[in-house]
Amino acid sequence: MNKGELLFDGNEKQVYSTESPDVVLIHFKDIATAFNNIKRAVVLGKGIVNNAISSYIFTYLRNNGIDTHFIEKTGEREQLCRKIEVIPLQIVVRNYAAGTLADRLGLEEGYKPANVIYDLRYNNDELGDPLINDSQATGLGIATPADLAYMYETAAKVNDLLQSLFSRAGIKLVDIKLEFGRATDGSIILSDEISPDSCRLWDIETGRKLDKDRFRHDLSDVMASYREVWERLSKLNID
Amino acid sequence: MNKGELLFDGNEKQVYSTESPDVVLIHFKDIATAFNNIKRAVVLGKGIVNNAISSYIFTYLRNNGIDTHFIEKTGEREQLCRKIEVIPLQIVVRNYAAGTLADRLGLEEGYKPANVIYDLRYNNDELGDPLINDSQATGLGIATPADLAYMYETAAKVNDLLQSLFSRAGIKLVDIKLEFGRATDGSIILSDEISPDSCRLWDIETGRKLDKDRFRHDLSDVMASYREVWERLSKLNID
Repeated sequence: MNKGELLFDGNEKQVYSTESPDVVLIHFKDIATAFNNIKRAVVLGKGIVNNAISSYIFTYLRNNGIDTHFIEKTGEREQLCRKIEVIPLQIVVRNYAAGTLADRLGLEEGYKPANVIYDLRYNNDELGDPLINDSQATGLGIATPADLAYMYETAAKVNDLLQSLFSRAGIKLVDIKLEFGRATDGSIILSDEISPDSCRLWDIETGRKLDKDRFRHDLSDVMASYREVWERLSKLNID
Repeated sequence: MNKGELLFDGNEKQVYSTESPDVVLIHFKDIATAFNNIKRAVVLGKGIVNNAISSYIFTYLRNNGIDTHFIEKTGEREQLCRKIEVIPLQIVVRNYAAGTLADRLGLEEGYKPANVIYDLRYNNDELGDPLINDSQATGLGIATPADLAYMYETAAKVNDLLQSLFSRAGIKLVDIKLEFGRATDGSIILSDEISPDSCRLWDIETGRKLDKDRFRHDLSDVMASYREVWERLSKLNID
């Protein structure tokens, strides 16, 4: 399919129309942002690696029964996806405490809660992606109780599948941010990307961080770490 | 019963032991605090009015089948209560948007959501009483899923009962903060106080605020408003 009109120019990705009203083309840029865009930089090659990782992971999830927006990788920085109407919520699935959760509740980084934690955030740049809860999301008309139930259920399955995949690559999945959208047929499907930008990934042996925290906290070797994630994943058989 | 040892000296209340290991005496002070103790002042007479209002409301709730810590009012500033182990959670039930909810999610004060909203906060001064959610509260061992289900169910009943009571007094119950504790027999019961310190109360006709927001935002006539709430409530028959 051909690249049509630019529909959305995001921080890290662009979305283009195609000949099909149900299909978009997503282009991965080399921009990294953090702290609600307070920190922003060019990270050369990131778009290529994230497109590779995300295409690989969405293929793995599809092979394991998860409905996603991903259709196929069509270039170094490009993939075709089903067109969606974004649901402005993020579900952050947390197997260990880190980041804002650790800060807000006074937990040590790496603390393992007695159960998997699900944070819900309202995807709204102006408000700084604030925390929201189920009764707020339904009360504001952002999602129905059935939408939320489906999203949490899918998030739990995705987390199980990805913990298993990453552990085969010697990586601990600390947390992962998931986004969903409504496809043109009305169904809710997993969308956005899954990459070291949207997960916290720690080497199982050394605890070394292999994710966007290297960029957030100036830990150096951002791209080397992203590439290492891709090298380890790409050696695994996911068919 | 006699006032024994001072067990807890809070901002707005003191808790004393009594001859019974299952009973405490609560003394209401004249201190008002807001914004996690950044604002603090003496408000003469507040302890007397809040003890009157809270005793009255807990009696009403008990008459309507809610299990609470309240036993009886024994003096101008004193009430006997069942001894509890505090569960460090606050459930804020919101019929209309105001305060931190309105700020965080960009809602107009007075906005009516499509359903009642339940915020959960972690009662922790050091952390500034942060938002917490169910999976976090269970994951950190603060409460079990069954504890939370009981607390939400009770909060919904209390909200229905109090919306009805306050509307008879010409007052709109905007939101209410509820706390719970574990009694010496292990059961979970409603605790703390219910007063203009813990509710947002607006005159139905004029929209005038009759609650702690008058103190928070320097709206004057704090005590006159608290007294008005008490005068209106005390005229109602709750037997």
